[in-house]
Amino acid sequence: MYKCLVSGAFDPPTMGHMDMINRAAKLCDQLDVCVAKNYSKSNMFTVEQRMEMLRADTAHLKNVRVISFEGHLANFVIENGYNAMFRGLRSESDFGYEIQLEHIYRKFFDGKAETVYLMTDPQYSYISSSIVRENYLLGADISGWVSEEVYEMMKKYKSIK
Amino acid sequence: MYKCLVSGAFDPPTMGHMDMINRAAKLCDQLDVCVAKNYSKSNMFTVEQRMEMLRADTAHLKNVRVISFEGHLANFVIENGYNAMFRGLRSESDFGYEIQLEHIYRKFFDGKAETVYLMTDPQYSYISSSIVRENYLLGADISGWVSEEVYEMMKKYKSIK
Amino acid sequence: MYKCLVSGAFDPPTMGHMDMINRAAKLCDQLDVCVAKNYSKSNMFTVEQRMEMLRADTAHLKNVRVISFEGHLANFVIENGYNAMFRGLRSESDFGYEIQLEHIYRKFFDGKAETVYLMTDPQYSYISSSIVRENYLLGADISGWVSEEVYEMMKKYKSIK
Amino acid sequence: MYKCLVSGAFDPPTMGHMDMINRAAKLCDQLDVCVAKNYSKSNMFTVEQRMEMLRADTAHLKNVRVISFEGHLANFVIENGYNAMFRGLRSESDFGYEIQLEHIYRKFFDGKAETVYLMTDPQYSYISSSIVRENYLLGADISGWVSEEVYEMMKKYKSIK
Amino acid sequence: MYKCLVSGAFDPPTMGHMDMINRAAKLCDQLDVCVAKNYSKSNMFTVEQRMEMLRADTAHLKNVRVISFEGHLANFVIENGYNAMFRGLRSESDFGYEIQLEHIYRKFFDGKAETVYLMTDPQYSYISSSIVRENYLLGADISGWVSEEVYEMMKKYKSIK
Amino acid sequence: MYKCLVSGAFDPPTMGHMDMINRAAKLCDQLDVCVAKNYSKSNMFTVEQRMEMLRADTAHLKNVRVISFEGHLANFVIENGYNAMFRGLRSESDFGYEIQLEHIYRKFFDGKAETVYLMTDPQYSYISSSIVRENYLLGADISGWVSEEVYEMMKKYKSIK
Repeated sequence: MYKCLVSGAFDPPTMGHMDMINRAAKLCDQLDVCVAKNYSKSNMFTVEQRMEMLRADTAHLKNVRVISFEGHLANFVIENGYNAMFRGLRSESDFGYEIQLEHIYRKFFDGKAETVYLMTDPQYSYISSSIVRENYLLGADISGWVSEEVYEMMKKYKSIK
Repeated sequence: MYKCLVSGAFDPPTMGHMDMINRAAKLCDQLDVCVAKNYSKSNMFTVEQRMEMLRADTAHLKNVRVISFEGHLANFVIENGYNAMFRGLRSESDFGYEIQLEHIYRKFFDGKAETVYLMTDPQYSYISSSIVRENYLLGADISGWVSEEVYEMMKKYKSIK
Repeated sequence: MYKCLVSGAFDPPTMGHMDMINRAAKLCDQLDVCVAKNYSKSNMFTVEQRMEMLRADTAHLKNVRVISFEGHLANFVIENGYNAMFRGLRSESDFGYEIQLEHIYRKFFDGKAETVYLMTDPQYSYISSSIVRENYLLGADISGWVSEEVYEMMKKYKSIK
Repeated sequence: MYKCLVSGAFDPPTMGHMDMINRAAKLCDQLDVCVAKNYSKSNMFTVEQRMEMLRADTAHLKNVRVISFEGHLANFVIENGYNAMFRGLRSESDFGYEIQLEHIYRKFFDGKAETVYLMTDPQYSYISSSIVRENYLLGADISGWVSEEVYEMMKKYKSIK
Repeated sequence: MYKCLVSGAFDPPTMGHMDMINRAAKLCDQLDVCVAKNYSKSNMFTVEQRMEMLRADTAHLKNVRVISFEGHLANFVIENGYNAMFRGLRSESDFGYEIQLEHIYRKFFDGKAETVYLMTDPQYSYISSSIVRENYLLGADISGWVSEEVYEMMKKYKSIK
Repeated sequence: MYKCLVSGAFDPPTMGHMDMINRAAKLCDQLDVCVAKNYSKSNMFTVEQRMEMLRADTAHLKNVRVISFEGHLANFVIENGYNAMFRGLRSESDFGYEIQLEHIYRKFFDGKAETVYLMTDPQYSYISSSIVRENYLLGADISGWVSEEVYEMMKKYKSIK
């Protein structure tokens, strides 16, 4: 049985995140989508709100479970017996950061797990949670960048006057 | 059951290729390593010689099979029911080419298969088959860039005076 | 009056080319789309066939004219009094080549014309004429990468058995 | 009539900014140079001081007007009927950020305006406002990076002991 | 006599730094390794602690001296008569920043000194002081990223409960 | 005594090459500028013509010698006891290729020599020998890209009707 992980801040989850999660879910028996509390320094939504958003967006995926986590991610991957961690690649700029991360994880994974990459659908490649937040706060219409459910929850949890 | 593909020219297979194949083999039930005849315009070794080299390098991997192929790769992936095609990423320069390829395959895969990337071990990230060939032809010692078995076969099939 | 140029091999013109031409046409009074004969070393279609394709794709643009050209492009721009030459940017890989080109043209334009860039719609950013040709020759369905008219002309002028 | 915009923090305006503004001014009937208040979190000069610097540097350009702005830039572009927004590209590093921005604006512009890029003169490609500020504060001679008028205003408004 | 400089925050010095220092020391008669106080905004170790770490790591290099510095680096290089300043290049992402820096230094060096680059050993190319600090603080084993001596000093000066 | 090498095709030598050679000559006791015959597949000028051009451009540098070479460059460096080989970096695109090359040389140099990089003056960063040749053949004025002496020799050895 292949058990994999997708980890991120998901503040909020975007259509780009969902593109990756939908595809990763087809490539393993169980996929855990994990809200990493470490990244959440200047977050707009609480960990629980982000997990709620992810549960809404992954309700149709029977092998996906939404969890949260705090600490050293590589240890978490090894201790929980994941075969692989999925990450998304959106652009060459992403790549420089991700290759650095991959080699760090490689040291800690020590052959017990692998980091596996999916490239983001080009129509979502320019979206990030920070761009969603920034435009949302300026009152712009961000439909198409997050799911309708997430958009509703954003308005509920962080209303813009 | 997850059935995956690694495709390339492998002219010859390098330690970088083997790093990727060893890791991919752990992430699926069956991994087919495929010598793509299309790429073989100016090849140093015949398709059969390259398959022999790959068989030597993958003999320890029970779920790996060496095959060959000619035609439109995306069709081959779909028709043979592969879940995913693994590709290696060595550098940012690779990335620009690979993201283009990924989006082409995405059109043809149409959700029936995915392209999945592994990042090459940094100690092999600068090696390519063409660098191996070029240095080999200049009489340089290329040990460490290919396996000992492959190095022996290279000397046998393409001796340097 | 602003008179601008788009130059390329257009072998064949893609939806990415058309995205750029449609947008450039809104930014000037007259836009000349120019088939550069220099680039046409290993072309699939003749200059006249490519001009016919471009005429079909730009029929709805009243301020666009399809022309052809041979020689030193910068001289052509200056001698014909263009205010600017439009070029498309698809990716970071493109950028490295284009910035080199821009600085060469800058020397020859000498302030009399400018090179102006538009970034390609992400859904077309991975398409190029060479990718269209390569997949077409392998018998793949390339609809969505070129217009229906161009696809028909490709089949007429270069049939695949 | 073509009416275009250049927007930035201009804290302070550099010779790279002026290279772009001088060239953009030749490509439209009216060019508005706009100090974006949003970007001005940790600014060295007030919005009014930066507008004064830009007025000094653009005094020779009859079709240029210096303005300021706060809010969602894409809305500002649409509401004021600009045909295009000019942006400068200095390097591949810039490109990754700019292509992301372009695709965001494309969503909001919705065909009513375009983002148009000029590549910076190589002799100015390494200059940025932050590099000017940082070296100025360390007491270095920054002549050649900003105009003489701007250098004088910098000394007047932010003297270095 | 060739007298050169390596400058950085070294918070803490990594195996990547030491790879560069060891190689640079072979290319000149005297190499000064300089802890730049400017960079030390959010430092984990004091300037004196970092100098102690560097002295431990360079004890075997007879032509290396550890110093510290504050102010405008280019002036420091010129005033102290260095022939060249060595810098390391780890990746394409580094490159964009370094080429900008190089052109700034070129203005201030004015032919009196040169910036000279060494490319980091691939096995260290993904390590940085900030990655060392971040993983150290999360309790991960960072051996192999810093020397044993530095690791001991890190534990002594900044213990992790 | 520091003895260094600059190697290239120099077909023809450009102002960018000379910028690097002039700076490298200040950083060692002896600098050999070497025309590599390997690269000369489709050359415009003979090895002897290129050496003559380099001798003209380096006549003012007392510690520079013009040589030629054929074979495996790394062996040549080791056998002749060079301390370092200088290479130029013009852009991020160059970087991807150069880092690959550097790691290959590192294997063969085995600590006996180092590859050292200088970044090209931005005003020359877009020039290459192939751009010089291409524009020269189209009859364009290439002054400023090569020295006056080299331009004269180009006209003498390869006249354009």
